[in-house]
Amino acid sequence: MADIATRVYNHKWKIDPIVRSLIDTDFYKLLMCQSVFRNRADTRVTFSLINRTKSVRLADLIDEGELREQLDHIRTLRLSRGESTFLRGNTFYGKRQMFRPDFMEWFENLALPDYHLEKRDGQYELTFEGRWPEVMLWEIPALAVLMELRSRAVLRAMGRFELQVLYARAMTKLWEKVERLRRVEGLRVADFGTRRRHSFLWQDWCVQALIEGLGDKFTGTSNCLIAMRREVEAIGTNAHELPMVYSALARSDEELARAPYQVLADWHEEHDGNLRIILPDTYGTEGFLRRAPDWLARWTGIRIDSGDPAEGAETAIRWWRDRGEDPREKLVIFSDGLDVEKIEELSARFAGRVKVSFGWGTMLTNDFRGLVAGDALAPFSLVCKAVSADGRPTVKLSDNPNKAMGPADEVARYKRVFGVGNQVAREVVV
Amino acid sequence: MADIATRVYNHKWKIDPIVRSLIDTDFYKLLMCQSVFRNRADTRVTFSLINRTKSVRLADLIDEGELREQLDHIRTLRLSRGESTFLRGNTFYGKRQMFRPDFMEWFENLALPDYHLEKRDGQYELTFEGRWPEVMLWEIPALAVLMELRSRAVLRAMGRFELQVLYARAMTKLWEKVERLRRVEGLRVADFGTRRRHSFLWQDWCVQALIEGLGDKFTGTSNCLIAMRREVEAIGTNAHELPMVYSALARSDEELARAPYQVLADWHEEHDGNLRIILPDTYGTEGFLRRAPDWLARWTGIRIDSGDPAEGAETAIRWWRDRGEDPREKLVIFSDGLDVEKIEELSARFAGRVKVSFGWGTMLTNDFRGLVAGDALAPFSLVCKAVSADGRPTVKLSDNPNKAMGPADEVARYKRVFGVGNQVAREVVV
Repeated sequence: MADIATRVYNHKWKIDPIVRSLIDTDFYKLLMCQSVFRNRADTRVTFSLINRTKSVRLADLIDEGELREQLDHIRTLRLSRGESTFLRGNTFYGKRQMFRPDFMEWFENLALPDYHLEKRDGQYELTFEGRWPEVMLWEIPALAVLMELRSRAVLRAMGRFELQVLYARAMTKLWEKVERLRRVEGLRVADFGTRRRHSFLWQDWCVQALIEGLGDKFTGTSNCLIAMRREVEAIGTNAHELPMVYSALARSDEELARAPYQVLADWHEEHDGNLRIILPDTYGTEGFLRRAPDWLARWTGIRIDSGDPAEGAETAIRWWRDRGEDPREKLVIFSDGLDVEKIEELSARFAGRVKVSFGWGTMLTNDFRGLVAGDALAPFSLVCKAVSADGRPTVKLSDNPNKAMGPADEVARYKRVFGVGNQVAREVVV
Repeated sequence: MADIATRVYNHKWKIDPIVRSLIDTDFYKLLMCQSVFRNRADTRVTFSLINRTKSVRLADLIDEGELREQLDHIRTLRLSRGESTFLRGNTFYGKRQMFRPDFMEWFENLALPDYHLEKRDGQYELTFEGRWPEVMLWEIPALAVLMELRSRAVLRAMGRFELQVLYARAMTKLWEKVERLRRVEGLRVADFGTRRRHSFLWQDWCVQALIEGLGDKFTGTSNCLIAMRREVEAIGTNAHELPMVYSALARSDEELARAPYQVLADWHEEHDGNLRIILPDTYGTEGFLRRAPDWLARWTGIRIDSGDPAEGAETAIRWWRDRGEDPREKLVIFSDGLDVEKIEELSARFAGRVKVSFGWGTMLTNDFRGLVAGDALAPFSLVCKAVSADGRPTVKLSDNPNKAMGPADEVARYKRVFGVGNQVAREVVV
């Protein structure tokens, strides 16, 4: 008995859509969106897709028509009734009604704005311009679409059983990681892999595998749709775009120096507990913490997203001690370039010294390294960033100069304002 | 959209039947059955299940009620209209109407006879008694049921994703074999793994993987149902039960000495071409070939099913030369204890000297070694053999004394009659 209805239903799609829901996105995007909707709703921003791995020539791999179809499909998406009910009714981070009625009403009527697409030098130039709370919601689906179209381009030539074996190998690979992680005492790990996932179905599989394989050690997923469907926690707080846009809008060096703290002051108004997580590396962690107001030291934790993660955590621990806080009561969230070895190493190093949790991204949801000829499915470093706000360029310095962004003169100015000295360059894999 | 109809259909079964078709059996069983139906229809035989791997305590693993339900279900099976059409209409080994109308009519009305089941010392004693053409059709489904119930017993404790990863690993393992076999020049390999398969679905998957992965190097499957569904050749000729029963029926030593040749004389009447394959090892290959009539040397090939396979093939080649035949025109079929290494080794050794093909069994359809704790899914050596005919015990000597069967005095008599000297014992894994 074939499921004729399902097959007919599937054939009705002109395309096989990659993103089928507005909440197939990172949960922190929605938290930030609500914050932006309240505090900076009229700011006009430009987001731009940047492929840091030039050797992966996306425009040669991916058909422009297919890409446009996928992006156009995303523009047709509306928040569904069930999704809205979930966002309105669910408890997030222990809090009911995390999303305010005015925000929900706006979100229920939202359609994503238009995009601008061009080819240049074997890459796609994909940009989004408009009001910040709308444009920012393009980031994750745009990345997910390009990542999955690239996967599909590579998979197209494969036979049915070759494909099945490919996924069998990828499953085996992930399960071996699960079996190692199961042995890590006190582990707390979440899926942060939406943006650079191999595909939606694969991310969904990975999350389910972690639910069964890690039990309580698995804390949830950043993907809001998967959190809803698989009934696990939606995880995430805030990201670089907030300080980047706030900083771009600053009218003077003094305002610029204050901007990253203003972001967190606004956040402080809205959130408490485990949502009070500092992301200190946008313009250098050392200087950020040195100049931070005391109330920030009372926040719950710090997320380490660039630079050497162990050093970043040591810096955070020293800072808490200097401010009279007990690091053992604090949380360090590692979220940059993690794989099992690094998770094991960091867990062992910080056990008993600070609470630790992990946001495991690309190497969870897209580790197809070594599984096809020419390693054509290896993950690559694709980002989608705010590049300007109200006509002014944004800047990111990060704790790794290879992750820095922005015009050279502005980068120099930011380095001066934020007192960033020498930094150690680290290879950016994903 | 869940496939409600399929789910409801599946829930209608009180059991999940392992064998759902009378042609879910080895093709050679049907060929032999037709031959027996014509030549020895009234012979009464007893078939008995024997687990040579005593450490696998089947009666502790498998619930007797479940086993009875599966066996009872097999007794309810009848040849379906489509299956009958396939057997009547398909071309087997290049021949139309391989199955004669009188045989088909009998088969269409066949229900398998009753069974006798007891527990003893942690094992099941399962026997079948009755007319040879009916009882012989129990062998393969009985083995398949016990093999799959054992698999199910081990799998029962596993979680959903653990299970999926188990199959992912098994698929990966098989595909690595396929990738190695693909490089073997001139390879011809068939699936002979029905009787000791992990499960029906797994065998079906393996066959489909070989179709895609090996292309023309894959010649077909011994499983008649899978051959029909996957539209590949049904493969197989004849087995030890023919000389064993013919020999048991012999009234004197002289008749006994002639019995194995009488089997092939009857076969010669019915079949030609690639179905004329000698299985010489029932009472020792050396003596069988030495005493064989000249017309047998003109048969197409020899199947090597025990003893050292390379030595067996060398013996065959020497015999053909002695009888004035060109071995390069002859076929050697290896079918005992094969895995990739052995297939590679034998292919290399005999390339250009004789035509070679492989009947790959247990290590194709049941290689779960090393995939679960305690190796609880490792294949084991289960057989189902004719143990008596018209009240007289059967005997098998084989080229490996560890595969010998029968009462000691009869074994001694057969050794004397067939002039079997010293034999080298080889471990029987499967």
